[in-house]
Amino acid sequence: MGKVYIVGAGPGDPELITLKGLNILKKADVVIYDRLVSEDLIAVATNAKELIYVGKHIGESEKQEEINELLIEKARQYEVVVRLKNGDPFVFGRGGEECEALRDAGIEYEVVPGICSALAAPLYAGIPLTHRNYSSSVAITVGHRKEGKKPDLVRTFRSADTVVVLMGVSNLAEIVRQAVNAGLSIKTPVAIIEKATTREQRVITGTLDDIVQRAAEEKIAPPAVIVFGDVVKMREKLRWGL
Amino acid sequence: MGKVYIVGAGPGDPELITLKGLNILKKADVVIYDRLVSEDLIAVATNAKELIYVGKHIGESEKQEEINELLIEKARQYEVVVRLKNGDPFVFGRGGEECEALRDAGIEYEVVPGICSALAAPLYAGIPLTHRNYSSSVAITVGHRKEGKKPDLVRTFRSADTVVVLMGVSNLAEIVRQAVNAGLSIKTPVAIIEKATTREQRVITGTLDDIVQRAAEEKIAPPAVIVFGDVVKMREKLRWGL
Repeated sequence: MGKVYIVGAGPGDPELITLKGLNILKKADVVIYDRLVSEDLIAVATNAKELIYVGKHIGESEKQEEINELLIEKARQYEVVVRLKNGDPFVFGRGGEECEALRDAGIEYEVVPGICSALAAPLYAGIPLTHRNYSSSVAITVGHRKEGKKPDLVRTFRSADTVVVLMGVSNLAEIVRQAVNAGLSIKTPVAIIEKATTREQRVITGTLDDIVQRAAEEKIAPPAVIVFGDVVKMREKLRWGL
Repeated sequence: MGKVYIVGAGPGDPELITLKGLNILKKADVVIYDRLVSEDLIAVATNAKELIYVGKHIGESEKQEEINELLIEKARQYEVVVRLKNGDPFVFGRGGEECEALRDAGIEYEVVPGICSALAAPLYAGIPLTHRNYSSSVAITVGHRKEGKKPDLVRTFRSADTVVVLMGVSNLAEIVRQAVNAGLSIKTPVAIIEKATTREQRVITGTLDDIVQRAAEEKIAPPAVIVFGDVVKMREKLRWGL
């Protein structure tokens, strides 16, 4: 019986994997990986007999069950099974569910953290999530619809100085409406970072009252991270890359 | 004129640095590092002519200014200046302030993200921050006193399903009081992870009504990460390490 390593691949740039994750990947007998995981990382797994793509779409519970079963099956077949996931496995990565399935099947596992795009995307845009003058709290949530329902982010927008929304671009107008309903000024700065940390990274900025139009004009598409709050203003001064 | 790389060292385990951070560290002419950064990482900087410890205490603004000046001075002296910080530079790391000082001085810089202890500490305790059944939002904040004032976390506790508090152990009783004031049930699960991801990691769990006593009994001390919310219950099933 093998062991399953649930490894965070990071936000996009393959160099942002941890050394620990990289070392495990080199020893992998099989790699089971998601959509958006860099090919350069898959190429590291030179010992692997199988590379299995399970690029799942959000909310597909059936597919998640198939992945859980696949992990169990491969752990019975190989010594080192690597489940390579985008970002961090325990932040909106359903890594907890994969652990539950493995525990129920009596299979040993370990989780290796990854750089989370909720934190790295703003960083690569020159936006610190906290700042002495602007922000002493950060909230992270998701903006996609679940089973057709609108996301409910009003509470989140009331809570933290900086709010980071993952998977929200397709619902941007609704999310902005909720931010306004939560009492945020229509002049609250907003940034959207598309394909963060990769060579194709794009950043647009605006305010609550114009970001929807700007995103449409620039044809911003997933994967993208949205940041709300005064820290966004720092980009103008601090940006160093794209 | 050199370039300053502001690099996240991660939460404790030296293997949790990113490959990008590691490669930059190997080329460093000088490393300016914080308290709690692993000696094993400093040892990687075999090219360095100087290793400068600036283990600063929280809230010491004067010391931060000294560090800013040191970065500028060293950038004028060397090609590759590495500023090695705990966790992630842009999450309660004052990395933004260091960038501002460098920009004002006309010095080139780049920020390399690090694994943030707010995310990695729960992960190493077997606690996923989000879960289909328990949590769809995470808030991260700090619990230490600023200039003698109590932290104000009531708003944060109302906001997210999971709340992670950094640097809060010395104010635990006050933080718990604020969680109750925010309307959280006194049976809300709480975990405290001390020295997360290191060999000395310790985890205690309890609920809002007994965690202060338990932390005192176990003599929990900084550095520690506190997690509030139903996801803490997952540890009982999912823990794989300490």
